[in-house]
Amino acid sequence: MSRSIDLAVIPGDGIGPEVVAEGLKVLTAVLPQDVKLETTEYDFGARRYHATGETLTDADLEQLKRHDAILLGAIGDPSVPSGVLERGFLLKLRFAFDHHVNLRPSKLLPGVATPLAGDPKIDFIVVREGTEGPYTGNGGTIRRGTEHEVATEVSVNTAYGVERVVRDAFARAQARPRKKLTLVHKNNVLTFAGHLWTDVFNRVAQEYPEVTTEYIHVDAATIYLVTQPERFDVIVTDNLFGDIITDLAAAVSGGIGIAASGNINPSRAYPSMFEPVHGSAPDIAGQGKADPTATVLSVALLLRHLGYEAEAGRIEDAVSADLAERATLPARSTSEIGDALRVRVAAG
Amino acid sequence: MSRSIDLAVIPGDGIGPEVVAEGLKVLTAVLPQDVKLETTEYDFGARRYHATGETLTDADLEQLKRHDAILLGAIGDPSVPSGVLERGFLLKLRFAFDHHVNLRPSKLLPGVATPLAGDPKIDFIVVREGTEGPYTGNGGTIRRGTEHEVATEVSVNTAYGVERVVRDAFARAQARPRKKLTLVHKNNVLTFAGHLWTDVFNRVAQEYPEVTTEYIHVDAATIYLVTQPERFDVIVTDNLFGDIITDLAAAVSGGIGIAASGNINPSRAYPSMFEPVHGSAPDIAGQGKADPTATVLSVALLLRHLGYEAEAGRIEDAVSADLAERATLPARSTSEIGDALRVRVAAG
Ligand SMILES: CC(C)[C@H](C(=O)O)[C@@H](O)C(=O)O
Ligand SMILES: CC(C)[C@H](C(=O)O)[C@@H](O)C(=O)O
Repeated sequence: MSRSIDLAVIPGDGIGPEVVAEGLKVLTAVLPQDVKLETTEYDFGARRYHATGETLTDADLEQLKRHDAILLGAIGDPSVPSGVLERGFLLKLRFAFDHHVNLRPSKLLPGVATPLAGDPKIDFIVVREGTEGPYTGNGGTIRRGTEHEVATEVSVNTAYGVERVVRDAFARAQARPRKKLTLVHKNNVLTFAGHLWTDVFNRVAQEYPEVTTEYIHVDAATIYLVTQPERFDVIVTDNLFGDIITDLAAAVSGGIGIAASGNINPSRAYPSMFEPVHGSAPDIAGQGKADPTATVLSVALLLRHLGYEAEAGRIEDAVSADLAERATLPARSTSEIGDALRVRVAAG
Repeated sequence: MSRSIDLAVIPGDGIGPEVVAEGLKVLTAVLPQDVKLETTEYDFGARRYHATGETLTDADLEQLKRHDAILLGAIGDPSVPSGVLERGFLLKLRFAFDHHVNLRPSKLLPGVATPLAGDPKIDFIVVREGTEGPYTGNGGTIRRGTEHEVATEVSVNTAYGVERVVRDAFARAQARPRKKLTLVHKNNVLTFAGHLWTDVFNRVAQEYPEVTTEYIHVDAATIYLVTQPERFDVIVTDNLFGDIITDLAAAVSGGIGIAASGNINPSRAYPSMFEPVHGSAPDIAGQGKADPTATVLSVALLLRHLGYEAEAGRIEDAVSADLAERATLPARSTSEIGDALRVRVAAG
């Protein structure tokens, strides 16, 4: 384990800067004295796009590449046409750094409100493929704007790409107490991609005899996420299905205000990127109303990825303790929540 | 309105025959004396596939085409490889008869249990495109079974196909008291298809100044479906997104046991097909445990499509009354529920 962390920080748009500040506050507090933390801030996002027309250049990628990891707040603003920053920054970064494991844990912690009735037990992780599927930008448009327009989107799936993420998911399932892995796809309709995913999944499963496996169609998976979320332990799925079910998973386990994610390249050939699942929420930006918890939990994922397991655990414990008390406390500002978490991890 | 109904009946697999029998029972009871109902049963599904290798032939389509409408129970069995009956029968029928309006209402009726906490108000319809998107079967596989396999799925979207379903949805929104229409897509990532859908939606919107419109990404839509379902009135969306969100919509509004759907060709050039959203549920087939309510409500959609508005309403009222009492009654068999509904519509 390196005793220094060279971190790229991308505060971004909207509430991004506010929540990232709290994430860094907690990160600084949790790190042992002897670990040198160096941070470099980058101004990607709507402001830079309006000023320069750039979203993420090759030179930017060269610079980002030198860091150990990336912490991102949020990117996106209504002033930028839909898709420009998503494709030009967020997805470009995932593809450039081959972030093929998009990790999204869902755990309903004590004291946290869920829209579900009863007392559901929710504790699973989604391993979402991050570099293939319909996210590749393949496709096109002919006769744009006419009554004869045709627009296509091509989902690209490779044995290489599917196998590496399926292997990652099996390893994670093997390491968890319940050892269960669910493949979510739509192999009865998307039969070409579905066969590939199912074949690879079944093949790799033979190497993990202790892992219980199941297959669920994506439409049925949304039903189970609200009626039997305890059914899930680890889910592996394609890029688009993963996008959809992780938002739903976040909603049922306390909301996107507390949902963390990692865009991981397990090979470490490139830095991995950690970010809250929520967006830039321009409507509440700059008002100290944003919940920094998702960013703080993303910092925990970042630390675990870099080998700081104990510190990651301390952050997660601090968040659990803080959430357990929230219902009894008056509403707090972004920085008040950050301060409370900082105090807890420092004491922990 | 024709005073006769020539109906094709496809009981299908698993619980299909049981629920269809109840659907027909209620249909017979609700129709005025002077309406002649003629039914022709077809044996499509797993049994026929195993016996003949056929799912749906051109000759079959010729026969089906002659009817006024089709009532289907469920198609699908674990003994048939995934995709064979889905692509070879269900989707083939939708495509052959150009069922471009896939109509799925979601209404949480009094007395019906929902997995959501609180007392959510749910009353919306989803207009799902039925003949395009990633459902076209476009795509393919190279190097199948090798480590170099590549599998693609192509989502095909045309101005013609998008506009007709968007127009249908606007007309439905205009006819409802709240007059609100939500476009659900993922136009920040699937930018080619997304632009087409968004452009057409905005263009048609100008002809419906009374309809309030909004756009929501499919991932965010799953969040709103569990946190603010009252937000929705009419949703229009692509084939795959519609598949996913309508299962979730069914789950939050009482389960797929009571979710109805219509595969509609508004031009009436071909018969439309009505079916419960649930599948063949082979685990409970033949035991009288299946809930026929979704099929009965599909019969109501069928009647409305054929112009029998009053009769459709009587079925819906009977179902509402029956559901309101269910919690107080001991569990009933498939045919007991059908009988109760028959008595109600006959009295109504
Ligand atoms: C903003 C968008 C490109 C992104 C995605 O679709 O992956 C987001 O929804 C997410 O889940 O990280
Ligand atoms: C069985 C399958 C082909 C079908 C679909 O994906 O459309 C089903 O899920 C549905 O929603 O009617």
